[in-house]
Amino acid sequence: MTSTSPTRTAADAPTDAAGLMDGAALARRMTDRTARRAAELTRRTGTAPCLATVLVGEDPASVTYVRMKQNRCAKAGIDSRKVALPAATTTGELVATLRGLSEDPAVHGILLQHPVGPHIDERAAFEAIAPEKDVDGVTMRSFAAMGFGLPGFVSCTPGGILRLLDAYEVELAGRRAVVVGRSPILGRPAGMLLLARDATVTYCHSRTVDLSAHLREADIVVAAVGRPEFIRGEDIKPGAVVLDAGYNPGNVGDVDFAGARARARLITPVPGGVGPMTIALLLEQTVDAAEAQLGAGAPVSG
Amino acid sequence: MTSTSPTRTAADAPTDAAGLMDGAALARRMTDRTARRAAELTRRTGTAPCLATVLVGEDPASVTYVRMKQNRCAKAGIDSRKVALPAATTTGELVATLRGLSEDPAVHGILLQHPVGPHIDERAAFEAIAPEKDVDGVTMRSFAAMGFGLPGFVSCTPGGILRLLDAYEVELAGRRAVVVGRSPILGRPAGMLLLARDATVTYCHSRTVDLSAHLREADIVVAAVGRPEFIRGEDIKPGAVVLDAGYNPGNVGDVDFAGARARARLITPVPGGVGPMTIALLLEQTVDAAEAQLGAGAPVSG
Repeated sequence: MTSTSPTRTAADAPTDAAGLMDGAALARRMTDRTARRAAELTRRTGTAPCLATVLVGEDPASVTYVRMKQNRCAKAGIDSRKVALPAATTTGELVATLRGLSEDPAVHGILLQHPVGPHIDERAAFEAIAPEKDVDGVTMRSFAAMGFGLPGFVSCTPGGILRLLDAYEVELAGRRAVVVGRSPILGRPAGMLLLARDATVTYCHSRTVDLSAHLREADIVVAAVGRPEFIRGEDIKPGAVVLDAGYNPGNVGDVDFAGARARARLITPVPGGVGPMTIALLLEQTVDAAEAQLGAGAPVSG
Repeated sequence: MTSTSPTRTAADAPTDAAGLMDGAALARRMTDRTARRAAELTRRTGTAPCLATVLVGEDPASVTYVRMKQNRCAKAGIDSRKVALPAATTTGELVATLRGLSEDPAVHGILLQHPVGPHIDERAAFEAIAPEKDVDGVTMRSFAAMGFGLPGFVSCTPGGILRLLDAYEVELAGRRAVVVGRSPILGRPAGMLLLARDATVTYCHSRTVDLSAHLREADIVVAAVGRPEFIRGEDIKPGAVVLDAGYNPGNVGDVDFAGARARARLITPVPGGVGPMTIALLLEQTVDAAEAQLGAGAPVSG
């Protein structure tokens, strides 16, 4: 291969092991573009895009994620407004906070870091986010837009997975995609996005009987269960494309990486695969939202 | 078998051919209950439940469907308000009509008969229906509620299919369900409802390669493609449960009925299977909506 594109090189390299889908590199390219758009918007309107990050409590992982997102915002020229609420915050208080941010013209996108505590009605909180500021793609409206293939903000992790598949020119139409996991912000929307792109989509989950049988027929596997190395390498169909959205303690994904890599054609590493794409989508959609709200005319992505 | 329940007799009868899932009989029982609830609500509040039916143009099939729904309403003690608009109605005019009905306290449920003409933005029209009056389950909010397994109005045909499965005590958890078709008001929500009930759900559609291979593994088949006898009997797994939502010219469903019946355990006839359930759900959800809006306290079904 003489291509100098890192994308093509990884995908097409003749090797016994799968090519790696380099989410970190793709996310960098996306975020470079997002930063240029943010700068242009700021220059034209005098206002920088602004993402409000809402964190309830002090769960260490959540604190880290929010800080990471804010740092990436800063590097991309996106303002962030940190809203830290005590762990004892009620659903009503959280809803009021999110409604206030939804009505605040200085805020263009809203991220509610999840999971919130079990005493909070997470769905009620998500629904307090105005659709035009739902840059994390968590509202029912955003889900339905994904379900129907309509324009709108996508859930960032599934959206990132689709971008990776497109960057590596993975054909989706007519291919068998197996999504393992069905959470409202990951597995379910991932399946909907794949269906909208004409894949034949199977949702597998904790109640599925004989997951291996499904995986062995899958051209595309999306692992989104949150259990370390839950997907066995020997179940991966030779030549399949594997996207691992898991991120478990010890930098371990939901897929047995070594085992799967020996059989797959393309696979995402953990870390450096799906994870960086999630933040890249968040930043991109924040600028989409700011452009729309500041009248800059660019359509919402999706 | 000594059971006198028609449901049990059909399901349990030892026979070479599949038992029939008698949607007509189940729909009658549901509508009897709906009529009792409508009468009780009318007695208590002085107001009968009211369904507005909106028809654009004069497509003969649509005219017939609307008339049938109005007749069933009348028999169940539900008022209906017929809104007939000319074929040349614009999206803006239709949206304005639906918004008016959404705000009219005398109307409790709204049905927009579809398909509307190709010059109308059907999604914009559906979204003009207030969620609390979306008794046909067509809005994005209703879809997301089905997608997340939350309370809300269900799309009537998929909702009717689930009721049939429950009436015949078909186990769903862990079973392989194949939904053939992915329309926003039939296939897609049917898959979501089955997923919420813990089935392993595969969406097949026009781009699916080797549909037969999927069908041959399916414990539950939902046929929703609108093509006469598209599903071949020989592809049905022995012992499967087959729900045929098709209704094509000549009273033909989407499934080769004779061929499928020879292999299935349970199957819906066409007509008399899924079709009557659709209207039964519409009436039931209209009374749900009226109870909620008249403050009668019953929760919305779902």
